[in-house]
Amino acid sequence: MVSVHLHAGKVEIRDTMQPKRPYGFALIRLLVGGICNTDLELQRGYYGFSGVPGHEFVGEVVAADSKSLIGKQVVGEINVACGDCKWCRRKLGRHCPTRSVLGIVRHPGAFQEFLTLPEANLHVVPDSISLEEAVFAEPLAAACEILDQVKMPCGSRIAVLGDGKLGLLVAQVLQANGYKVHQFGRHPEKLKIAANAGVTTEIRGDKLPEAEYQWVVDATGSPAGLHAAIRMVEPRGTIILKSTVHGEIPLDTAPVIVNEITLVGSRCGRFEPALEMLKLGVINVGSMISERMHLSKAPAAFERAAKPGAMKVLLWS
Amino acid sequence: MVSVHLHAGKVEIRDTMQPKRPYGFALIRLLVGGICNTDLELQRGYYGFSGVPGHEFVGEVVAADSKSLIGKQVVGEINVACGDCKWCRRKLGRHCPTRSVLGIVRHPGAFQEFLTLPEANLHVVPDSISLEEAVFAEPLAAACEILDQVKMPCGSRIAVLGDGKLGLLVAQVLQANGYKVHQFGRHPEKLKIAANAGVTTEIRGDKLPEAEYQWVVDATGSPAGLHAAIRMVEPRGTIILKSTVHGEIPLDTAPVIVNEITLVGSRCGRFEPALEMLKLGVINVGSMISERMHLSKAPAAFERAAKPGAMKVLLWS
Repeated sequence: MVSVHLHAGKVEIRDTMQPKRPYGFALIRLLVGGICNTDLELQRGYYGFSGVPGHEFVGEVVAADSKSLIGKQVVGEINVACGDCKWCRRKLGRHCPTRSVLGIVRHPGAFQEFLTLPEANLHVVPDSISLEEAVFAEPLAAACEILDQVKMPCGSRIAVLGDGKLGLLVAQVLQANGYKVHQFGRHPEKLKIAANAGVTTEIRGDKLPEAEYQWVVDATGSPAGLHAAIRMVEPRGTIILKSTVHGEIPLDTAPVIVNEITLVGSRCGRFEPALEMLKLGVINVGSMISERMHLSKAPAAFERAAKPGAMKVLLWS
Repeated sequence: MVSVHLHAGKVEIRDTMQPKRPYGFALIRLLVGGICNTDLELQRGYYGFSGVPGHEFVGEVVAADSKSLIGKQVVGEINVACGDCKWCRRKLGRHCPTRSVLGIVRHPGAFQEFLTLPEANLHVVPDSISLEEAVFAEPLAAACEILDQVKMPCGSRIAVLGDGKLGLLVAQVLQANGYKVHQFGRHPEKLKIAANAGVTTEIRGDKLPEAEYQWVVDATGSPAGLHAAIRMVEPRGTIILKSTVHGEIPLDTAPVIVNEITLVGSRCGRFEPALEMLKLGVINVGSMISERMHLSKAPAAFERAAKPGAMKVLLWS
């Protein structure tokens, strides 16, 4: 079967054996995958990764222990957890210390014709959600995670820094949940997607508001984002760190302490609210697709996804 | 009158005029002051400070608009706020954007024979609290601030990093409030003070527990403290940043985001719970006094306070 491999900074197409399905796992035929910035970072070798990438996907179950799953279109949570530790028992397998992670840590990813995932990780995609919407379930769940972590009074003003894919999902999720979102970005055409969802958008200049927001989400993926967020948040306010930056950020803790700011790291989320929002049709993900390519064109697709201004590049199988 | 001045890294004794008392302010005769690490940082010129330092004090009111205050022994909150902004209306004058701060920002400090503070900032010291206990009200309030900011279930295990003055107050406050505190430090004689209060103490080696505490307080005052706290806190856990570090700390945000850690900056606190705890006699501050000197010996007192291993140096007037 066709599978995509990252190795020494290169994206290669290989012809490999179909994976074996362990007990409790489903064998899934890939329908469509989405290239995430994390995949590009894995390509750059940031985490010493070598193997099959891909953690955003929709697939069709072709074999499973639960017969009711067979033939179903599914999306899947990416953390493969032990199921038995204190985190798993709290339904926080995303933090299971021995977890592997689809396409990221010790579990071959979704960018191959067939993949495996525990049946417990799968969510059947409702008929009313298209494949190209469902493929956003994973990053949308990450955006929804903010709502699970931070209790913000309904109607609060929230600043979102960054207008990349995650920033746009975050802004739309928050706006759809009753918050007044003010998004700062650098790309008029991207900000337009959020503006169409009711978000107040602003092309970010050198001058940003100071100490003005009780809630700031940093989705810039750059060290400057955290520094800007610290200036923009008001005393006793909260900054949600939504995008990783490779390497170390020089941080002056004095304003964090003097102004008693809270910083909240935020990563993967539950799929349920993400699928619910897609079903309600309140998140415009269609406008966020830059390109559709076949799985076998993954090297070109990765190149396209890495170009400045690119948004979601989909890999169809 | 005798007043202490910091200027160009030097501690000087000057003979100055008694300050004028503005309307709404009390004129206070200093009884005893405490040298804080912040005073030593001001001496080093970290904040471009020049003037009279000192923000930990007990004094006697000699003149005030409220006649009932006159003759009373008082401690005082250090933030001189406008009283009218949204922060002041929320009783958070500590974050008033136009505030001055006693002995730190645009308000001459307590290390002089007479000082002024708004009457609204003053708390009368109950008879049962000695002067040498009351002088700890300000740093103790800062330790108590954690309880106002972070809702931790009673009985939670909390790690406290650092066994300096603030670390010892934090550990004792948390232990006295029903938490199980585990304090890591480098000085057996200091840790003994916490141990006597029921705190589990440990001389910090190179190896620290990993991902073991839901709550970690960093009171080390060193960049290494934050890095250690990030390793020690469990996923979804909270780190309280209790001590400032001069300059920038290189921070790898990846573990903060992947493990969804919360960092909470924490500074000044309300005096009420601090005085209440001193009244109850549950905080041993007496053992934390290294030396008592006269105000006129401030240069030597600052030198003493800066020596490794020194604890609280008091200035009597």
